Amino acid sequence: MKPLLSIPTFAELRLTQDAMKNMIHRTPVLTNQYIDELVGGSVYFKCENFQKVGAFKMRGAASASLRLDEDNKKRGIATHSSGNHAQAVARAAQVLGIPAYIVMPQNAPKIKIEGTRSYGAEIIFCEPNQHARELTLAEVVNKTGAYFIHPYDNYDVIAGQASATLELLSDFPALDIIIAPVGGGGLLSGTALAAHYINPDLIVLGSEPKRVDDAFRSFRSGHIEKNERVDTIADGLRTTLGTLTLDLIKRHVTDILTVEEEEIVQAMRMIWERMKIIIEPSCAVPLAAILANKEIFIGKKTGVILTGGNVDLGNLPF
Amino acid sequence: MKPLLSIPTFAELRLTQDAMKNMIHRTPVLTNQYIDELVGGSVYFKCENFQKVGAFKMRGAASASLRLDEDNKKRGIATHSSGNHAQAVARAAQVLGIPAYIVMPQNAPKIKIEGTRSYGAEIIFCEPNQHARELTLAEVVNKTGAYFIHPYDNYDVIAGQASATLELLSDFPALDIIIAPVGGGGLLSGTALAAHYINPDLIVLGSEPKRVDDAFRSFRSGHIEKNERVDTIADGLRTTLGTLTLDLIKRHVTDILTVEEEEIVQAMRMIWERMKIIIEPSCAVPLAAILANKEIFIGKKTGVILTGGNVDLGNLPF
Repeated sequence: MKPLLSIPTFAELRLTQDAMKNMIHRTPVLTNQYIDELVGGSVYFKCENFQKVGAFKMRGAASASLRLDEDNKKRGIATHSSGNHAQAVARAAQVLGIPAYIVMPQNAPKIKIEGTRSYGAEIIFCEPNQHARELTLAEVVNKTGAYFIHPYDNYDVIAGQASATLELLSDFPALDIIIAPVGGGGLLSGTALAAHYINPDLIVLGSEPKRVDDAFRSFRSGHIEKNERVDTIADGLRTTLGTLTLDLIKRHVTDILTVEEEEIVQAMRMIWERMKIIIEPSCAVPLAAILANKEIFIGKKTGVILTGGNVDLGNLPF
Repeated sequence: MKPLLSIPTFAELRLTQDAMKNMIHRTPVLTNQYIDELVGGSVYFKCENFQKVGAFKMRGAASASLRLDEDNKKRGIATHSSGNHAQAVARAAQVLGIPAYIVMPQNAPKIKIEGTRSYGAEIIFCEPNQHARELTLAEVVNKTGAYFIHPYDNYDVIAGQASATLELLSDFPALDIIIAPVGGGGLLSGTALAAHYINPDLIVLGSEPKRVDDAFRSFRSGHIEKNERVDTIADGLRTTLGTLTLDLIKRHVTDILTVEEEEIVQAMRMIWERMKIIIEPSCAVPLAAILANKEIFIGKKTGVILTGGNVDLGNLPF
């Protein structure tokens, strides 16, 4: 395999899924009677919070690292991330026995720093802003020759994230709608691409906090919009779309729904209390969107990608 | 079917399992690589926190209510409980379309009162002590003719709780050890009985907070011991054994392990953080016992009954 340089074909998505199956969990799908009754439809939760490193990001990191040639593998992989992608790249490198260099902002949560370090990655700290992150990463890549795994704007990463939807539709082929949160768009574009190949009539929705509604606006304007503020509780969704992800989202996503902060917290609490599983705030955004737009989901079978469960238990919103 | 008046046979356990299968979930079994490496063995978690009403108690309530004759059903079922058994009896009655009368102490957690009420049960409040609970229940039973479903000292309830182990051993027949928490002993005696019928060599362990080690002492002395204090975080394990449960525990349980309060909190946090599932403090006691007694579990396949996930998110120990 080589890195993908154009939109992955269905065959390439399947090949990716097959190649990485020993590096990831096939995650379970849960349902909940209370939530079904509340929505007036059937909701199928794909539990990526149970994924390796606690988030779907493991899929993209596995997919991208597996496609490197032997020379590249020897030099290792690198990224910048304050969150789940850092741990995913670190673990992918550990499994493959290759070096990983992770640029992290000095103020990254201690639990994510420790998690990343526990997989044996070398951590390089930088000032907590986008410019410093990119500059520091460039220095690391220049020095080491490591391959930069972009957190979302990379077709290998997108093909990896798509595998969650291949699994979900293999378990539940009759879904009418799939909804995922959107930050950088790696998950949403992979979800939409996989759904498009399997059933072009399937409705694919993005969901996003109103406070960082860049994807909502980008979807309408057709080019990458920025966020003026990033103070949402859904810390995984603060990034803006990339060129590749926006293109795929324009092609295959039906619409993007936005939700208020308190709707996110309520949906998060509902999943904790009713489903007895731990999800992070970003992960509650799709259910919040469903509950705020029930008319779309009544009588329908809806798949929800639950993205991750890495949350600081000492700092909960309830 | 009629209420069981002697130790359930294997055939009766299976009949119970079959009769109640539409009233309960067949719960999943989860594993965790981190915990396996920490223990040095394989641990299989039977997730009763995903059970209906969020706890294994649904099994016992379903089993006992299903065995009533039509006259008894018309008059309804009753119990006293401040916790999961209250909700389980209320839901069993709702499913069967019969009345439920639940005596609850005035200081029961609001979430449990609301949960019980949401299943349509009539709640009768009493002073928060054992004497008032029993007296109030007796009045209710005299007035209504409802059938009292004891939370544990009842062979139908024990047969219901045993079904978790029938499922677990059907999924993983090669277990060496099963460990469950012990409060009143309904779960532990059902677990031990089912294990005994399927594989008499299987080691069955109870686990209990040191602060309420009545079962540990009863197991050694041979008669029901009381607790002088009940201030454990594991609020589901404060009760003492009953006559029927002690008898079965003496017959079929190998030993009872006790753990410190801080070991319970650490094990609870580990399951939340590593497995991304919500369990209540009582439910963390078996893992705490495993981690404090690793020599017993190294190289072994151990099944753990995770008992429930009903926890007040506004009042967490971390």
